[in-house]
Amino acid sequence: MMSTSKRAAAAKAVEYVRDGMIVGLGTGSTANFAIEFIGQKVQQGLTMQGVASSLQTERLARENHIPLLSDFEKIDLTIDGADEVDPHGNLIKGGGGALTREKIVAAASAREIIIVDESKCVGVLGAFPLPVEVLPFGWRHTVAMLEAQSCEARLRLQGEAPFVTDNGNYIIDCQFREISSPEELSEKLNAIPGVIENGLFIALTDVVIVGKKDGTTEEFTFSEI
Amino acid sequence: MMSTSKRAAAAKAVEYVRDGMIVGLGTGSTANFAIEFIGQKVQQGLTMQGVASSLQTERLARENHIPLLSDFEKIDLTIDGADEVDPHGNLIKGGGGALTREKIVAAASAREIIIVDESKCVGVLGAFPLPVEVLPFGWRHTVAMLEAQSCEARLRLQGEAPFVTDNGNYIIDCQFREISSPEELSEKLNAIPGVIENGLFIALTDVVIVGKKDGTTEEFTFSEI
Repeated sequence: MMSTSKRAAAAKAVEYVRDGMIVGLGTGSTANFAIEFIGQKVQQGLTMQGVASSLQTERLARENHIPLLSDFEKIDLTIDGADEVDPHGNLIKGGGGALTREKIVAAASAREIIIVDESKCVGVLGAFPLPVEVLPFGWRHTVAMLEAQSCEARLRLQGEAPFVTDNGNYIIDCQFREISSPEELSEKLNAIPGVIENGLFIALTDVVIVGKKDGTTEEFTFSEI
Repeated sequence: MMSTSKRAAAAKAVEYVRDGMIVGLGTGSTANFAIEFIGQKVQQGLTMQGVASSLQTERLARENHIPLLSDFEKIDLTIDGADEVDPHGNLIKGGGGALTREKIVAAASAREIIIVDESKCVGVLGAFPLPVEVLPFGWRHTVAMLEAQSCEARLRLQGEAPFVTDNGNYIIDCQFREISSPEELSEKLNAIPGVIENGLFIALTDVVIVGKKDGTTEEFTFSEI
């Protein structure tokens, strides 16, 4: 079962959480297991403060009695999931639509731990459509500028209406198939007026923990920690 | 009087507006004159549709009976002001806080006409503090990342509370003094998670019209039109 591998990766990551830390809380099904496990540690006496990367995570953290900071400048450790991880620890995130806050949290974190099951590990990023958060104002022109980067760009819907992010914006899912130069693409996308942020996370990951179906984990480190 | 030069530049720019055009309407004291003049032409029978670059401009356009589009993909012509114009037609904009929508409008426009009085023309951009729109979420860390670009960064206030843009975000005013490589700086700023857009407008201007105190104008063209 997929949840076995997700739970295993989450449990391993939560071992990094120490007393007194400010901990970034990711968004999504794998990150949710980490939030549950952190909540259990808090019940057992761990003192920490969380930073929620989405409104959904904020609710889940409150249910799990995790004290939350609304304002922060630095974060000690963040545990988050990903939609794709490449061999360099670069990511595609944003399948759930929380990419912008997740990226702010990642950039503010001394250590970013990414937890995934094996299905998320890829040789080259891009099979998963890259989520791009854009302002509703002028979004049709923004889509045209995204398509000029050689992708198929599609407005994400929720039912028949546009999906709206926690920041009040839209998500454009961009099918690139293979992203050969993720850093270069990320810069080009962010230079488009109307683009808030894109789901490429470059050089932000410190540790990737991959959960396996048998409940074991494998750990990859991308910087001295 | 300053308003003489602003009015002269605005009047000259409005000569470019033709029947059937979709016209981007800028924000600020100089752009406001253009909106008034376009409104007069509409009363005289001009058929056009406007795209407002801010809520303030939307109100003024309605007062002047200019029909507005809420959705657009391409714009024929935009008339907007600027806080600084350099000899290449590169700009600093956003003193009024509308930079992101103004930049989306500029990028979507076949022709961008910038109208200014002489005081806005500079040799090198950067004496005017560069406005950067940022998400409220994590703004303290975003400020720290902006300051790492060698500027003094200050949260814009309205009274004692943060100034809030039409998009619900904050503005950080960044004092660089001299911006020697505006294109490079713009890319770096937009790559910071949390940055929505910055006030550097690079290679977006087609025509600059400078109004003089005596009511004459001077016109500079930066691309074939």
